[in-house]
Parts: sequence; C-alpha cells; structure tokens
Amino acid sequence: MRGMSLLVKNALLVTMDASRRVFRGDLLAEGEKILRVGVIAGRDMVGLSKLSVLDGTGLWCLPGLVQTHVHLCQTLFRNQAEELPLLDWLQQRIWPLEAALDEDALDASARLGIAELFASGTTCILDMGTVRHTDVLFEAAKQTGLRFIGGKAMMDDPASFPALRELSDDSLAESDRLASRWDGKENGRLRYAYAPRFALSCSDRLLRAVGERVAGGGRLHTHASESAAECEIVRTSRGMSNIRYLERTGLCGARSVLAHCVHPAEGELGLLAETDTAVAHCPSSNLKLGSGIAPVPDMIARGIRVGLGADGAPCNNWLDAFTEMRLAALLPKPRSGPAALPAAKIVEMATIGGAAALGLEHETGSLEVGKQADLVLVDPRGLHATPGGDDIYTTVVHALRASDVRATVAAGTLVYRDGELKTMNADAVRRRAEEQWGKVRKRAGL
Amino acid sequence: MRGMSLLVKNALLVTMDASRRVFRGDLLAEGEKILRVGVIAGRDMVGLSKLSVLDGTGLWCLPGLVQTHVHLCQTLFRNQAEELPLLDWLQQRIWPLEAALDEDALDASARLGIAELFASGTTCILDMGTVRHTDVLFEAAKQTGLRFIGGKAMMDDPASFPALRELSDDSLAESDRLASRWDGKENGRLRYAYAPRFALSCSDRLLRAVGERVAGGGRLHTHASESAAECEIVRTSRGMSNIRYLERTGLCGARSVLAHCVHPAEGELGLLAETDTAVAHCPSSNLKLGSGIAPVPDMIARGIRVGLGADGAPCNNWLDAFTEMRLAALLPKPRSGPAALPAAKIVEMATIGGAAALGLEHETGSLEVGKQADLVLVDPRGLHATPGGDDIYTTVVHALRASDVRATVAAGTLVYRDGELKTMNADAVRRRAEEQWGKVRKRAGL
Repeated sequence: MRGMSLLVKNALLVTMDASRRVFRGDLLAEGEKILRVGVIAGRDMVGLSKLSVLDGTGLWCLPGLVQTHVHLCQTLFRNQAEELPLLDWLQQRIWPLEAALDEDALDASARLGIAELFASGTTCILDMGTVRHTDVLFEAAKQTGLRFIGGKAMMDDPASFPALRELSDDSLAESDRLASRWDGKENGRLRYAYAPRFALSCSDRLLRAVGERVAGGGRLHTHASESAAECEIVRTSRGMSNIRYLERTGLCGARSVLAHCVHPAEGELGLLAETDTAVAHCPSSNLKLGSGIAPVPDMIARGIRVGLGADGAPCNNWLDAFTEMRLAALLPKPRSGPAALPAAKIVEMATIGGAAALGLEHETGSLEVGKQADLVLVDPRGLHATPGGDDIYTTVVHALRASDVRATVAAGTLVYRDGELKTMNADAVRRRAEEQWGKVRKRAGL
Repeated sequence: MRGMSLLVKNALLVTMDASRRVFRGDLLAEGEKILRVGVIAGRDMVGLSKLSVLDGTGLWCLPGLVQTHVHLCQTLFRNQAEELPLLDWLQQRIWPLEAALDEDALDASARLGIAELFASGTTCILDMGTVRHTDVLFEAAKQTGLRFIGGKAMMDDPASFPALRELSDDSLAESDRLASRWDGKENGRLRYAYAPRFALSCSDRLLRAVGERVAGGGRLHTHASESAAECEIVRTSRGMSNIRYLERTGLCGARSVLAHCVHPAEGELGLLAETDTAVAHCPSSNLKLGSGIAPVPDMIARGIRVGLGADGAPCNNWLDAFTEMRLAALLPKPRSGPAALPAAKIVEMATIGGAAALGLEHETGSLEVGKQADLVLVDPRGLHATPGGDDIYTTVVHALRASDVRATVAAGTLVYRDGELKTMNADAVRRRAEEQWGKVRKRAGL
C-alpha cells in the first residue's frame, strides 16, 4: 500500500492509448500509478486504503495536459511586457525583471503559474528558469505535485544582459549541481534539463560543454529560431543557420527540445528529423511577439515530435493548454487547408505526443495501466460546447476551455477540483504574487 | 418612471467615451438608459423605483460587447461541420442543415446562441438568419433582451442550394415584410438589415433591388471576399472583383457591413474607405475555414470602420467576443509587428467601434449618460489575469476570458449574473438544443 487511492467513476475515458480507445468507464489509481482502466467493481478495490472517488458522470477524462515550453519564473510579469518584438521584449522588460527576482519573488511566480496550470488541466511541463535560484522552482514543483522537467537558464555570452551574465564555468557548475540534486527525484516526477537560453546568450564553449552532457545522457531545452532577427544575428555571428549551429555544438538529439522553430532555414527541418530532435510549438507566444507562424504541418509530415507550450505569461498572457490547442489547430489552416492538423492530432500533441517530445511517453500522456495517474476531468456540457459533436477531439480543441476543467490529478494526487486548488491556497498565491510583483518592479526600476 | 432602475456601485468604469475615461465610480440606469455616470449619492436616486444594485467592488465595468457578424441560426450546428473549406462547408454541411431547420429548431438555435452571448458579455449583434422563419429570430431577441440587427438570408441564384433557393420577388417581398414588421421595434433595440447571403448566391437583379433599398435608407449585411475560391468565382462570373461588384450593385455605403473581406482585390480597400462601408472582422472563422487573415491594420489605416464577429458556431466554435478580441490582437502581429492593433484599439473594435460599424454609436458601445444601458462586469482577479497590468486594455484583451464575466446588462435589463441567465433558463436551453439538433440532423439526413 503506497498511500491514497483514487477512483474516477463513470467518465468518458479519452485514453490516448495506442488504439485511441474512447469509452465510458472507470479509472483506479493506487498511489501515483494507474492500477486499472475499464469497469471497476467493488472487488477490485479490496485492500485499497483511503479511497477517494471522483464522480465522472457527464464528464470526460483525458490524460493530464503536457506543455513542452514554459517559464514559471516569468508568471509574475504577466501583463507587464506588451507589444514588443522578441529581442526588445527580452532586453527592455524580461531580463531586467528576471534580474530583479529574489527567491521569494521566484517562488511566488512559480506558485502563481502552477496554480493556473492545475486549474486549466496541465499536469506536466518542461520549464526554463531564470539564471539564479533554480532550487526554488524545483521545491515549488515538489510541494505542489507538478510533473516538472526544469533547468536554470544559462547565459555566459559577453554580450548577454550584464545583470544576468554568468561565467561559463559557474553556469556549468551550477547546472551540474542542480541536475545532481533534482534529476529523478520524487520517483521521477522531477527531472533536470540543461537550458542554455538561446544561441545568442551563450558562448560557443558553453554550448559545446552542454553538448557533452547531452551526449552523456542529459536532457536539453533551449530556444531556437523564434524570430527572424534572432536567426539573422546567429547567421552573421556564428557563420551558419541557427538550428544547424545548435546541431554542430551537440545540442540536437532525442533528449533535446527546441522551443519555437518558427523560421527553420533550408534543410533544418530535415536536420531536426534526422537527429530526432523535438520541437515545442508555442502558437500564442509566436503571434504575440510578432515572431511568425511555425511550419508545424511540415514538421509533423517529417515525423518530428512536436509538443505544445504556452511559453511565459508575459508573451501569452496565459499558461492555458486549451488556448494553445485551439490556436495550434487554427493557425496552419490558411496555408495548409482546413483539414491541416486535425483535432485528434492536436489533442495528441497536448497529451501523449507532448509526453513523447519530452521522452516521458512511458510515464504520462495516456490513461493506461501502469502509467502515472496524471489526468483531467472536463465538463463538455457548457452552453458554449452544446450540442456535443460526434468527434470528441473536435469538441476538446474547438469548444472546451480552461474554465471547463472540473478536476486535475497529478501523479495520483488531486490538485484541483471544482474551482479549488488542493495543494495550494489560491487567495494566498494571488495576494503574494501581487505583493512580490510590486517589489520586483521596484527593484527593476521599471 | 419607466420601470426598473439599476445601480452599478463602485466598479472601475472603462467608459470608452470620446476621451476614453477610466475611473472608479458608479453607474445608474433608469429603464433602458444610462442616467448618470460618476459618483452617485442617495439623492440621485430619489424617485427611482425598483432599484437593483450590482456591487462592482473589485470588478471592471465595460460597455456591453458588440459583434458585427453572427449567425444565430447556426448555433445548433456547433461541432458538426469540421475541417472543410468555405464552399464545401456551405454545400456539404451548413446549407443542408439550414434547410432542415423548422421554427422550433431555429428558436432553439437562437436561444442557445443568445444564452452564450449573454454569458460572455455580448449585448448587441448584427445577425444573418437563414432563408426562412426569420420572425423566430426577432422574437427570441425581443424576449431575451438582446440588441439585435437581423435579416433573412437572400438566395435566389439558380445555382444556389436547391432546398434554400427562393424566387427573387419572394425573397424581396419577405425581406420587406420583415423590415416593416421589426425595424425599430422595442425602442430601436431590434433593427432590420437586408442580407443577400453573398454575391454567389444572388442574382444580379436581386442585388440591384436590394441596392435600391440601401439607397433609400436600408441597412445591408452580406459576406464578401471571404475565401480565395469565392473571389475567383465572382471574378469569372461577374467580370469584376467581388467588393467592386457589390459596389456596382449599390451594396456599399455607410449603412453596409461586409463580413470577412479577407482577400480584397487591388483598389478594393480604397473603395471601402471611399464609400464608408464597414467591415466585420471574424478572425477565428477565417482561420478555421482556412480562408486567411484579413488585412485589418490596412483597413484601420484607411479609416474603414471595423467591428468584430464570431460568425456562426460551426466555424468558430464559440460566440465569444473575448476570444475574437484576443485573436484579432494576435493575428496581425507577425506581418505588421507586435505593436499592430494595440489592445486599446481592439477593445474599441469590440465596443464603440463595433457600434459605429453598425451605425449605433449614439445608442451603445460606451458608458455615457443618455445612451442605452448595455454593459458587462468582468472580474480581473483570476489567477490567469494576475498580476494586473498598468494597461487596462491589455488585461481585457490578453488576460480576461468569457468565464470572467460576472454580469451582463442589455438595455437596462440584467440578463446574466454569476453563472445564471436571467431572461432564460440555461438547462432548458441546453436540453432543447440537443433535442432539436437530433431532429435537424435526422431531417437533413446527415
């Protein structure tokens, strides 16, 4: 017996398993794991202690949503960095604000973000921190129950923002320390990913040193080819296109996730496919910063693993996977036709496909026996979703929204139900965020 | 004394008046109209009967949102017409389904749509009906309290969908009858707009006859240049580009609204500006049907009046003005930069600008004494909107969502508050919609 058991009773189970089974039934979790999926009788629960029951009548149960690119450290900057292109947005707002984060502010930012994620059905993220205080992010994920792959941002380029710039060796040493402290903790719910911010903020030496760690089994998370201006500077300063440069420094591969990839150069999509590098698609953020629309149908056609991500709150301004699903579905249609990226594919990207992009497809992303009990219950009966369509996935992508989430379970723990967070106090999170934002803004002088 | 009085107490009033005043205060409505805006004392309410009070503490009060292109008759087809381009979507799904609407089904469709509109803060729409039973739409608007400009779809072209096709004279006579029955009723809350569906569904003779009515003071609502395929067929069959053709038949002008205008031909934006023709921008719909992205910044730069619209539920799949605001703000940024269509401009398009596109700027769209009491109270304190930004409009556009609506007032009547519809029964609306959808689908044989 490993503690709590949880029974989801009589929901429509949208399993996202290999055969994409959808059926009305029950799901039983013991501790962190799914013990049984189907019709569950009393005898199946003999010997289980502390059983809590979620009545799923009328609801749909999906795998907990997976986001493959988030910055919890920036949640505090929501609504505070508007109408700027990427490089100005970083230089004028985000970097000064990140530099002004102390441990308290970072903690407040992370908890605000996690609260929003749970309330909108996301149970697993790949996160990039700021340069400092990264233990705080892992602590927040540990305490609240989020499945969290994180890493500190690495910025050692002499041209980087002075208040965040690190020495190369310090950046590597701190990353190694964090990896050794956190990677695999909480039965694998916490993982480390090395996170050079992007080519422009890192020295060639640093990137190559990270590349060695990736070759040795480490995970990699970075930004790539988000804006045309960024791509141009990389080409000029590094003598080759951005993704190719990342590949040359050893950063592409099956454990790597490149966020954005809005502007792949000639041959770079092929490079991503050959190296089995995953892409985090951030449709809202790519529009908001004026970056562009990523060629996701082309990526999918090449077999590239693509997940979704809200990115940070100041370029979205939400952390809501439903919004990203809908926008990811809509954006390619003018260029590739209304059947491009059908709804079933989009739900895949937000669940089992996102998990696969993170190398977690054996742990999360589908409702299957033996996997982690990461799930979300949604209510499809809102006026805005009525009448229900024949295709479940269409309704999820185009008619459901964050406020339709009725319950979120991460690693077998109920973290949100009917408007109430279960592992944190929403009012306290909100008050503390406002208070810490006031201090950060003052310190940043903005 | 004209019945109910309503006091909104202590809200942040986002007036959208000419000087765009934003301040904490109160708003008093007597009957349908705004009697006072500012700080309201007890003596201001002497002699007012049946005063109801909405506590606005912590909330923001905006003008009721205005949508300039909706099809209430299609709400029943939500989630039922997926992943098709415009002309196939019409031929294979929408027209057969519209042809299967009887009065009961149309009423169920309208009430479902109005319920969703009220719950998400929209108080005023320009609507296009189906070919038949249009009185039902006006009745539903009359009874529920929606500010409604509507009209029957006109389709007399021999190549039109047979089950909807009308004789030209019948189409005109029925439109004239509806206009004379409904235009200006309920103190102007109901208005008529002639609605030839689009160039391709109408004979030249019909369009010219409608043009005469527009010249005589009538309103006009049609679709124009939504998809590239449609534009090409118009050019081939009519010998000129679509909007130019509409202008030649007398359909452009200050009382005309053209929906979409995604693909204006050379010179057509100039034509819209010269003729003072308004455009209804439908960003979600234009993506979902793969139509494209309308050149809205160019329209605005030319002084064209542009409003927003969700279009019909089957091409969105919502009727939510918040979603359209956010998408309208995001979509132009990759082409025109992150400062294109700033948030303040977007809120304008959804309020006073939308009202101006409909020629209703003296009646609705801002919180000003003497205007109709159309307003919405939103809660900016959600986790997903925290911390609050300095710019109110940014928060409205990028951080608020339909579920943040706490109260909706249309023409002085409270129609929605805290999850509850006040002029209709949500459960009955939902049940009836599902039931009527079942019948429609059966009749349509789909």
